[in-house]
Amino acid sequence: MAIESDFSSNGSTAGGNLDQVLAIVGVGLLGGSVALAAKVRGVANRVIGIGRNEKRLQEAVDAGVIDEFLTELPDRDAPWTIVVIGTPVDRITEDVLRIAAVSRPGTLITDVGSIKGSICEAVQAAGLPDGVSFVGAHPLAGSHETGFEAARADLFNEKVTVVTPNPESDKATGSAIRSFWEQLGSRVIEMSPADHDTALATTSHLPHVAASVLSAVLPDEFRQLAATGFCDTTRIAAGDPDLWVAILRDNADAVSASLAAFSESFGKFQAAIENRDAGELKKLLQVAKRNRDALSEP
Amino acid sequence: MAIESDFSSNGSTAGGNLDQVLAIVGVGLLGGSVALAAKVRGVANRVIGIGRNEKRLQEAVDAGVIDEFLTELPDRDAPWTIVVIGTPVDRITEDVLRIAAVSRPGTLITDVGSIKGSICEAVQAAGLPDGVSFVGAHPLAGSHETGFEAARADLFNEKVTVVTPNPESDKATGSAIRSFWEQLGSRVIEMSPADHDTALATTSHLPHVAASVLSAVLPDEFRQLAATGFCDTTRIAAGDPDLWVAILRDNADAVSASLAAFSESFGKFQAAIENRDAGELKKLLQVAKRNRDALSEP
Repeated sequence: MAIESDFSSNGSTAGGNLDQVLAIVGVGLLGGSVALAAKVRGVANRVIGIGRNEKRLQEAVDAGVIDEFLTELPDRDAPWTIVVIGTPVDRITEDVLRIAAVSRPGTLITDVGSIKGSICEAVQAAGLPDGVSFVGAHPLAGSHETGFEAARADLFNEKVTVVTPNPESDKATGSAIRSFWEQLGSRVIEMSPADHDTALATTSHLPHVAASVLSAVLPDEFRQLAATGFCDTTRIAAGDPDLWVAILRDNADAVSASLAAFSESFGKFQAAIENRDAGELKKLLQVAKRNRDALSEP
Repeated sequence: MAIESDFSSNGSTAGGNLDQVLAIVGVGLLGGSVALAAKVRGVANRVIGIGRNEKRLQEAVDAGVIDEFLTELPDRDAPWTIVVIGTPVDRITEDVLRIAAVSRPGTLITDVGSIKGSICEAVQAAGLPDGVSFVGAHPLAGSHETGFEAARADLFNEKVTVVTPNPESDKATGSAIRSFWEQLGSRVIEMSPADHDTALATTSHLPHVAASVLSAVLPDEFRQLAATGFCDTTRIAAGDPDLWVAILRDNADAVSASLAAFSESFGKFQAAIENRDAGELKKLLQVAKRNRDALSEP
């Protein structure tokens, strides 16, 4: 299978790709930011939004996020050469297959879903038309904001995007998708879909649960005593419950393992506090501080 | 006992107090911000820093945070009329008593400690010289930054300061301390020291433990996959371990109760995820989101 894409050639951020037509399925924060970044960085010269809500899509055109839109897919020979699926995680597989069915050979499909194992497995199992390829991706560039109004051309700048080829994925396709995400500004890390889900269970799904628990146990009458520390620690608990049900259920095994690791460590803090064991408590807090200080974002 | 302070008269933010001499024991982020706010808002016309480290205190003078400094207390008849203790929680009681011993009648003393019960109780038990008064306070205006370099005149603006008179505290003293914190820009809430500690166990000490656990269980190899959500949720885990050992140990009973409440709710999330119970998980996430959305800071 020959991949006819300019994305596989090198990591340059502009030029040579202006014959690319980019389609975005689900023009929200991430899809909209892909659209903006692709135009600003010369990765595509035409961006088509695809969705169900004509009014919202027209607003995205008016806002300059996309050039045009479709609410129905063509029967075949669609105009795009690369497609980014930006819909919620529980709709991505279906959207990949719908899009692939009407795409021309050489079309590349990727996504922005925050879980990868089930999606990549299901797409692989379903199979795609000859010459149409999918490699999953997860840009770690979310926000508690939603909607294309919050989209930014620089959302991916210097942020990590995890690209997750299946073991069966064609190498050239993997390189092309990697190059696409690099051209949008991100730093690409390649992992298997399963390794991605295991890591994100600890770096994203566990914190979401912990933040949600902190928020859930806050009595209304203490709200006025919640300062910046509480607000930072619980910010992600404002995320969309439906989205998070889908993520946590889909990645339940890996999340359960990370919740168990949290519980074990929490128990050590709990014992040290109950026993007023200053030495042990200091050791635990020092490990936490060392790990936190090692992160690049203050 | 007559309180000769201008602070008790009303909540106006300027004028009438320029005969006040303010002393700050421990010129760090909070003490330094009190100093700056007091000068900017005309709450005092002279600010004396008190501490051990002459070099740091001279730097604070050079930076315009304080006017002058002392590294030794006078034997008696100190020049100040109001004193803010900004030292770590495990030194506050001792500093209140040291300062009170050399202060003139009419002197008001307050503090910025994030625990109140043990401090207010110990000061009450020790007793203060005639006419010298202490009422504890806790401005909810911290930061992960430390040192007077991070001090800001507007740090307390529209932030809550909890003022915690003992049941035995003189009413006029309580009003004067309340007025002082209002004049620095903060919104004052009055609570008993014990009620403060119970509430803060949930709004501050528990989040510190949860953030520390999240940070502690992050394997080094996943660090590059920690994005904004993880960074927000764990930011406070970068706090000073010694400071937090003192807080968590001092407030161990209330913190243990809030850790138990967290554990119980965490167990419900854990069960819902293990059982892939989407309905129950959605309910739990909705409560968390509702509580988080109700906070004023996004």
